[in-house]
Amino acid sequence: NRIVVLKGDYIGPEIMAAGLKVLRAAAEHFDFDYDLIEEPFGGEAIDKVGEPLPQTTVEAAKNADAVLLSAIGGPKWDNAPKRPEAGLLSIRKQMGLYANIRPTRVTKQLKQYSPIENEIVSGTDFVIVRELTSGIYFGEPRWQKADSAIDTTVYRRNEVQRIARTAFDMAMKRRKHVTVVDKANVLATSKFWRQIVGEIQPEYPDVTVDYMYVDATAMNIVSHPKHFDVILTDNMFGDILSDQAAAITGSLGMIPSMSVGQSGPNLYEPIHGSAPDIAGKHIANPISMINSISMMLRYTFDQFKMADVIDRAVSQTIEDHFITRDLGGDETTEATTKHIIKSIN
Amino acid sequence: NRIVVLKGDYIGPEIMAAGLKVLRAAAEHFDFDYDLIEEPFGGEAIDKVGEPLPQTTVEAAKNADAVLLSAIGGPKWDNAPKRPEAGLLSIRKQMGLYANIRPTRVTKQLKQYSPIENEIVSGTDFVIVRELTSGIYFGEPRWQKADSAIDTTVYRRNEVQRIARTAFDMAMKRRKHVTVVDKANVLATSKFWRQIVGEIQPEYPDVTVDYMYVDATAMNIVSHPKHFDVILTDNMFGDILSDQAAAITGSLGMIPSMSVGQSGPNLYEPIHGSAPDIAGKHIANPISMINSISMMLRYTFDQFKMADVIDRAVSQTIEDHFITRDLGGDETTEATTKHIIKSIN
Ligand SMILES: CC(C)[C@H](C(=O)O)[C@@H](O)C(=O)O
Ligand SMILES: CC(C)[C@H](C(=O)O)[C@@H](O)C(=O)O
Repeated sequence: NRIVVLKGDYIGPEIMAAGLKVLRAAAEHFDFDYDLIEEPFGGEAIDKVGEPLPQTTVEAAKNADAVLLSAIGGPKWDNAPKRPEAGLLSIRKQMGLYANIRPTRVTKQLKQYSPIENEIVSGTDFVIVRELTSGIYFGEPRWQKADSAIDTTVYRRNEVQRIARTAFDMAMKRRKHVTVVDKANVLATSKFWRQIVGEIQPEYPDVTVDYMYVDATAMNIVSHPKHFDVILTDNMFGDILSDQAAAITGSLGMIPSMSVGQSGPNLYEPIHGSAPDIAGKHIANPISMINSISMMLRYTFDQFKMADVIDRAVSQTIEDHFITRDLGGDETTEATTKHIIKSIN
Repeated sequence: NRIVVLKGDYIGPEIMAAGLKVLRAAAEHFDFDYDLIEEPFGGEAIDKVGEPLPQTTVEAAKNADAVLLSAIGGPKWDNAPKRPEAGLLSIRKQMGLYANIRPTRVTKQLKQYSPIENEIVSGTDFVIVRELTSGIYFGEPRWQKADSAIDTTVYRRNEVQRIARTAFDMAMKRRKHVTVVDKANVLATSKFWRQIVGEIQPEYPDVTVDYMYVDATAMNIVSHPKHFDVILTDNMFGDILSDQAAAITGSLGMIPSMSVGQSGPNLYEPIHGSAPDIAGKHIANPISMINSISMMLRYTFDQFKMADVIDRAVSQTIEDHFITRDLGGDETTEATTKHIIKSIN
């Protein structure tokens, strides 16, 4: 079981270290064998080899069973010719990771962290399926001249088909409800999405589909989050809405995500950034990384029991209020991690 | 004082009628003379003349001192060759209304309606300045073929300059803080915006500027709404964020907006849609329209006292709990309107 580790920048390495400790503890318990292959990526790679995504990293990632990534980027590389974020877009593209999947859940235990009133938010449980390797983040032409600039959204049939199937498959394992989010009252690409989704839909007769404009969705994620089961949307809208969705949980520091392709390894990563302001202070919340690892065990390695044990240990730690500052506690990254490991053992 | 009235679809005419009654009552009080010129627009115009924006309506709007618009569109015209929304984009373009300005306020009186916890949301007071006549809603090429589709974001120097100045001017009248919202870590047009804003900024040495990615902004509008004073952003991001911002107030049925251009009349309209589900039931909240009229009196006609009186009457009505269902009351549109008029007299 080969796991490529891209340890990230600023708080990235801190939470990666914490996550890997938890992985080691759980693996010993379950006799799960694995190799960690650390590769340079993002800011770290820029510093080392002048390039956020070295070709050797791409090769290693493609040959792995799973890739673990921690938060990258930061002010240090804001003016780099190629920024860490370019590496992120590029590794997604080169690994063919066309679907980004982000859970948004507000359980009984977590509802205290949500900025939204209990009645509205409690019980929220949806997943955003975001197209990740096309749309305006990749379309050409894109350029900036002295007096104008241009970006292009392009979507091709197969790109919409495969992400739609990802969303429908996901819905079949859940409450069988897909909400397609777009701006079909204005955009040609949105109309195109609706058409393709309409063609795929008959393959999934048990799934209910509704369509919602992105602006209305941005409202409803705040005011009616329980409406949603699976949100299917494009790269740009998915970027915005999945961060908004994270905000309504109030527990950004806990949310994992996974990116998947047609074949090849999935990539698992926390959804938050590299938090330069708290780097080195030992206060970063490691749970997002630990949850990413649990997600990896579940979806790549079919280690359901191991994932369950980790999930329960995380829950226990929250119940014990053994948590970092972002969740209202005063534990360090290391202390929280130790407590989680203790609950595993 | 020539006011062109585009009365809208579904609940549109209901709240327009309410708003105009309030205008009449206040005008009598203040000896404010005005002419109302009603023109067909949106779904109504499609039904009448087969076209959402007849040329006669454009001409009348251009020659007015102000345009009052109520919510348009609805399922009836979903498959029309030209939908009501096309008329909306087109009237903005033809009147040159490049800036859409939307206040987001959570006052003491209104905080009860917000789905966000008091501590976080109370005191929120910001304005979104959205570019309205360019970007991906207007850029070419845009097309949909059998196997792919395309949309294009284009921004030109003067388009960014003028909207930036609108935002800076607004900030000077407020807390002197502009947050530029973009996706400059990915998009060429965003980098271009940052460059132009950087060129304009020295004209406003008293204004503090910060830059925030759109995904982070979608988070912060939920978790730190008090951070913002003036948000400056493009057409697409502004569309999404301003609806999200409306949701955090919980009082969608009260929020007005204004669209302004270089010269020519402003256009005032509620931010919500035409609510086909409640049309004809006499339960639509007229306050968004009444607030739009107050905004018009203030910003087009310099009738500050008249606007103040209307605003106070609206506040009084909320305090008296003489409100429609969306705000938790059980009054009809007409009863609410009467109560507001009574407070004016
Ligand atoms: C860093 C950036 C390019 C990236 C994106 O927008 O895709 C990030 O915001 C994310 O959502 O993973
Ligand atoms: C109806 C639609 C075209 C319009 C827009 O997105 O501009 C609306 O959502 C708005 O915000 O005024």
